[in-house]
Amino acid sequence: MANIITISREFGSGGRELGKRLADVLGYDYYDREIITEISKKYQLNEDFVEQTLNKQVWKTVPLNYGRTISYFNTMHTSHMNLLIEEKEILEKIASSNRNCIIVGRNADILLEKYNPFSIFVCADMESKIQRCINRMSQEEKKTIKAIENEIKAIDKTRAKTRELICENKWGDRSDYNLIINTTGWNLKDLSQSIAPVISKWFEVKNEN
Amino acid sequence: MANIITISREFGSGGRELGKRLADVLGYDYYDREIITEISKKYQLNEDFVEQTLNKQVWKTVPLNYGRTISYFNTMHTSHMNLLIEEKEILEKIASSNRNCIIVGRNADILLEKYNPFSIFVCADMESKIQRCINRMSQEEKKTIKAIENEIKAIDKTRAKTRELICENKWGDRSDYNLIINTTGWNLKDLSQSIAPVISKWFEVKNEN
Repeated sequence: MANIITISREFGSGGRELGKRLADVLGYDYYDREIITEISKKYQLNEDFVEQTLNKQVWKTVPLNYGRTISYFNTMHTSHMNLLIEEKEILEKIASSNRNCIIVGRNADILLEKYNPFSIFVCADMESKIQRCINRMSQEEKKTIKAIENEIKAIDKTRAKTRELICENKWGDRSDYNLIINTTGWNLKDLSQSIAPVISKWFEVKNEN
Repeated sequence: MANIITISREFGSGGRELGKRLADVLGYDYYDREIITEISKKYQLNEDFVEQTLNKQVWKTVPLNYGRTISYFNTMHTSHMNLLIEEKEILEKIASSNRNCIIVGRNADILLEKYNPFSIFVCADMESKIQRCINRMSQEEKKTIKAIENEIKAIDKTRAKTRELICENKWGDRSDYNLIINTTGWNLKDLSQSIAPVISKWFEVKNEN
C-alpha cells in the first residue's frame, strides 16, 4: 500500500506550502486544487462552484451563471451528493494508485481512513497568519488587518463546518491527527526538511507491522 | 538563554517516557517529579499532598495525616497559594539556570511563557493508553479495562481543570503548543530520535533571531 499524508490546515498557516515542500523533500505526488479541477472537468462545472458546493455553501450562491442547465441545479441536493461521491471516488483512485502522495484539504484523512494515512493539522497564531496573508496579497489588494482577520476566521469556520458534516470530532481536535504543527516561528523550508524524516520513520514502522 | 522544552500529556500517552528519551538524545536536563520533591522537602510535607494541593484537589483530602500542625492546614488557601508560588519559583530557578532542559507537567509552558519554551502536548488513542497502563501495571494490580479507562479519564480531567485555573484555553487545545504528537503507532525510541532534530532546528532558528 502507498504512503499517504493528509494535511488539514488553518487558513494562512502555511499548510499548503508545507505540503508542497514535503512532497518535494519526500518525492511524493502532491494533490490539492487538482481534485476540484478533475471534478469540474468531468461535470463541466465552474471550479469555484464545485468547491463551494463541496463546502455545503451552495445555498449561498446563485448558480445560474454556472454551466449546465437550470433544471440540473434545481436538484441541488442531488448535485451536492454527486459531487461528494465524485470527490470520494477521486480520492480513492489516488489512494489506490500505489504511489506515495500528499493530499491537502478535502478532509482526505476521514475519507481515506481505511488507508491509515499520516494525518497532519497545520496551525499558527493569528499574527503569523495575518502576516502570511499580507505577504501573498497583490499590490492592488487593499485590506485592513481586521478584514484579513475576519476572512481567516470565516474560511476556517467553513472548513470546520464542512468537516463536522462527515466527522464526529471538531476540526483541529487533537484526537484526529498524528501530528499538529504550529508553524509560528518556523520558516517552512526548515520545517519541511526536519519533519520529513519523522513521517518517513512512521511509515517505516507501520509498513514493517 | 537556555533552551526549554515543556511537555504536557494525556495520562498513558507515553509523554513522560518521551520526555526522558528526548532529554537523553538531546543531552538536556530532565525535570518531572523532582519539582514536587523539592517543594515537599522545603515545606516538610508529604509529596502526594503537595501534588494534590497543586492540583487544587486539596478539599477532597483529609490532610490530618500529613506533616505540620492542624492549624497550618486550617489556612488551606494560604497553603495552596504558597505551594503555587513555590512551584513557580522552582520553575523560574530551573529556567534561568542557563542549562537546556525538559520539564514534564506542572503547566510549565504557561508558567515559563516569557522564556518562550518549545511546548509539546502528547496524546494517544484510548486503546493505546489503556495498553500502556496495562504494560506498566504490577502483577498484583488487578484492574478491569473499564476501570483503567475511567482512571485515565479522571486524571486527565484533573489535569485539564488545573490548567484552566491559570490559562484561558482548554488543556490540549492546539493554539497553546508548538507540536501535538499522537504516539499511537510509534515506539517511543524511534519517535524521540526522529523528533529531536525538529526541536533542535526550532531552537537554532529561534536563537539566530
